[in-house]
Amino acid sequence: MKALEEKILAEGKVLPGDVLLVGSFLNQRIDVTFLMEMGKEIASLFGGMGITKILTVESSGIALAVAAGAAMALPAVFAKKHRSSNVPGGVYTAPIHSYTHGTDFTAVVSSEYLLPGDVVLIVDDFLASGEAIRGLMRLCEKAGCRVAGAAVAIEKRYQGGGEGLRSSGLRVEALASISRMTADGVEFC
Amino acid sequence: MKALEEKILAEGKVLPGDVLLVGSFLNQRIDVTFLMEMGKEIASLFGGMGITKILTVESSGIALAVAAGAAMALPAVFAKKHRSSNVPGGVYTAPIHSYTHGTDFTAVVSSEYLLPGDVVLIVDDFLASGEAIRGLMRLCEKAGCRVAGAAVAIEKRYQGGGEGLRSSGLRVEALASISRMTADGVEFC
Repeated sequence: MKALEEKILAEGKVLPGDVLLVGSFLNQRIDVTFLMEMGKEIASLFGGMGITKILTVESSGIALAVAAGAAMALPAVFAKKHRSSNVPGGVYTAPIHSYTHGTDFTAVVSSEYLLPGDVVLIVDDFLASGEAIRGLMRLCEKAGCRVAGAAVAIEKRYQGGGEGLRSSGLRVEALASISRMTADGVEFC
Repeated sequence: MKALEEKILAEGKVLPGDVLLVGSFLNQRIDVTFLMEMGKEIASLFGGMGITKILTVESSGIALAVAAGAAMALPAVFAKKHRSSNVPGGVYTAPIHSYTHGTDFTAVVSSEYLLPGDVVLIVDDFLASGEAIRGLMRLCEKAGCRVAGAAVAIEKRYQGGGEGLRSSGLRVEALASISRMTADGVEFC
């Protein structure tokens, strides 16, 4: 998605620790009009595949999941990052390592919101090591859902997480794929 | 908003501890098509007031903030719940007590995303004690923003938080206002 690459070049900031900060339009401050365009792009990539549900993990994935859900007229489910007092009854859990924050957390989703027979599109803002997507795939497996694919706004292709997922047979689409990122700038595939 | 009241009656669950669970359509599992309708309702309530930005706090407020931002063609900013490695430079902070979880947290927003002169609409899923909205108002005050009002999906009117905010001069609009909630059911104002 050319417009996203341009937005990253114009507003993204490379921080130490291999972090690409896109807080001015994708996290923290969300350019909602642009976000909804990204949702439409995801819909055009994954339309007609019988998808019944969008799945993401809080909190940075929620906005894009909502945009994709709006464009595809589908509900969006987000896994919470720890067992919460507001997740009722049975839950599915999966441990996930956060590359961005260098911490581990448990993704939790109520068994009421992810049903056997659901065809799931996983959506997230970033794909780096692929840990988050693999964790969400484990939740789907536990719930008896089929994962139709994963759509991310930005893939750090050079980290290899996406490659691993693709070679395992998952369809992964990134709206922008970064081949190289240094303090001097960002290059796209 | 009659449709929201009907949705609460049909799908909401009252849990011990005065918790109204709406995870099947407003949290965790988001009925995105309905969410976008709620966003339009907020736009109709607060249109033409010169609002420049939507402000909420992660993570349960993000979806509704995105819906309101889409309907009003405005950016949505969410305060994070703790200092994150991805919030750059200067930040504004405000302590907030979470009624739902019985815990305290610090709302953090980068000074880059909340600017002097911004006219802010605060959006959240629930209004109970009013603590979250008051915390977000403090962030706006620190940033030199004007708060035009607050829009919430569900107000627990009987808890008095909204009344306190209104009597301090803030315009507060709830898409559904609960006057009484017991294990037997929910009554609206």
